[in-house]
Amino acid sequence: MLDVSLVGTGGMMPMPQRFLSSMLLRTNGNLLLVDCGEGTQVSLKNIGWGFKNIDAILFTHFHADHIAGLPGMLLAIANSGRTKDLKLFGPKGLIFIVEGLRRIAQELPFNIVYTELDDDKKSLFSIDGVDITAIGSKHSVRCLAYCFEIKRKGRFDVEKANALKIPKNKWSILQKSGKLDFNGKTYTSDMVMGKNRKGIKLTYCTDSRPFPALTSMAENSDLFICEGMYGEDEKKPKAIENKHMLFSEAAKMAKKANVKELWLTHFSPSLSEPSEFIENATDIFENTVVGTDGMKKRILFEEQ
Amino acid sequence: MLDVSLVGTGGMMPMPQRFLSSMLLRTNGNLLLVDCGEGTQVSLKNIGWGFKNIDAILFTHFHADHIAGLPGMLLAIANSGRTKDLKLFGPKGLIFIVEGLRRIAQELPFNIVYTELDDDKKSLFSIDGVDITAIGSKHSVRCLAYCFEIKRKGRFDVEKANALKIPKNKWSILQKSGKLDFNGKTYTSDMVMGKNRKGIKLTYCTDSRPFPALTSMAENSDLFICEGMYGEDEKKPKAIENKHMLFSEAAKMAKKANVKELWLTHFSPSLSEPSEFIENATDIFENTVVGTDGMKKRILFEEQ
Repeated sequence: MLDVSLVGTGGMMPMPQRFLSSMLLRTNGNLLLVDCGEGTQVSLKNIGWGFKNIDAILFTHFHADHIAGLPGMLLAIANSGRTKDLKLFGPKGLIFIVEGLRRIAQELPFNIVYTELDDDKKSLFSIDGVDITAIGSKHSVRCLAYCFEIKRKGRFDVEKANALKIPKNKWSILQKSGKLDFNGKTYTSDMVMGKNRKGIKLTYCTDSRPFPALTSMAENSDLFICEGMYGEDEKKPKAIENKHMLFSEAAKMAKKANVKELWLTHFSPSLSEPSEFIENATDIFENTVVGTDGMKKRILFEEQ
Repeated sequence: MLDVSLVGTGGMMPMPQRFLSSMLLRTNGNLLLVDCGEGTQVSLKNIGWGFKNIDAILFTHFHADHIAGLPGMLLAIANSGRTKDLKLFGPKGLIFIVEGLRRIAQELPFNIVYTELDDDKKSLFSIDGVDITAIGSKHSVRCLAYCFEIKRKGRFDVEKANALKIPKNKWSILQKSGKLDFNGKTYTSDMVMGKNRKGIKLTYCTDSRPFPALTSMAENSDLFICEGMYGEDEKKPKAIENKHMLFSEAAKMAKKANVKELWLTHFSPSLSEPSEFIENATDIFENTVVGTDGMKKRILFEEQ
């Protein structure tokens, strides 16, 4: 199970009616935040999932609209009583940027653990049982797109366990610990587990032109959250110039990647009513939703 | 004439319904901003006086709730098309702090001119025809309180001018340039001007315990904007511990300083309805107003 909330959906600058683009994930009570612009802590208060369990903040890049809220966020997390390490991930330069911003948030009751990710190769890591892939995106500065996956093991195969003559009261030990020593023999979980079932997959990309590796990474995602800086197709020259995307470009990737659902986000301040242009996306990929601040969804494992 | 707007009235952290404490002054189209916490640029959009004419930002101190919004503010000012210098004033440490924050706002189309002010002596300077006094306040870190004055010259004394036999068509030259060479004699404006009339005076203090030099500086202010972190008198031990003020303490200073009006600001996040405690101030100083975000007032010269 994965809960997702769009913390904000604005690009470039915070607006009175729209917070800056950011996403919050919750799994098993743990929180992962992607980006933290000016005002993200305010929007998080509205969402109500708390601050204490934010285990990691992942930055797409270091334009101010994606990181300027960090000092206030660190103090809000501190204020929540967190003492456990906080992990920060982002492109190269992360430490230099954050150490600058931290001049106004110097004393914190937790350690910050930095990981600078290469934007010219694929990075793979795990936080709170979520497998994360990061790849470089196509923006005006070093920028990352992220994919979040919760894997799901196969079912316990009763027939295999019986064939191996493992007594029923040992099944849960083998299933949980992955290993069982019994009657002079060693059994491992792969001997009794069916093949992995479909897990949960979410792909997040803001501040980029469309590119094939993003489509590949997003393949078969349950949810693809993608920037749509401009609604009208006529703005393509501007999108190319500023290294952003049109609604229709995000929709084309969603279709090609065979995702279940597409949420558009990171709207230009000039786009006061993004929903006016939704058809530019739905004509290409029907299950497109215009993101709104605070929007939430619970993604469950499929029945299998 | 001086226009004043309370940009925000919150202390400690930005809240969904309350921006962080900040004040905007406007005189002759020029803007002076005091403090710039997270979200100040959003509130400024609501106020609608623009960004381009912000000539100076004065910081009381460097706790995040008073300066974390600076990078976004610098970018908003840049986006407005400003190319003229921007002046920044604050306690010692200003340059170190701002240069850290500017790691996410490096390229700006204007110069930043820094002035670090001593907090252990009185500083006097002028911006846009406003005479400013800064004194150190009593907080947990170096902190400043500011007084803003627009002086007003006396009236042109027709009798004196006639007695000196200055022809009527030369009066405006003398009045405007302050000096007139005529008929082999030099006349200066003090020879024909009455004594200075009452100007406009505004005093601003957040993040401090009450102290006598603040009362003195605020004397006879048209408007005294002062922090009231806590409404209830029972919170005095907390106010002392955290170096903040009660409503009643601000009111006592307002009364002693003989100001015309007191606006309370910088409310604790725990103070969801500050107006519930207004009587703790009005019982001492009647003309007390609970500040609200975006509140505005135009202060005119008195008829004299």
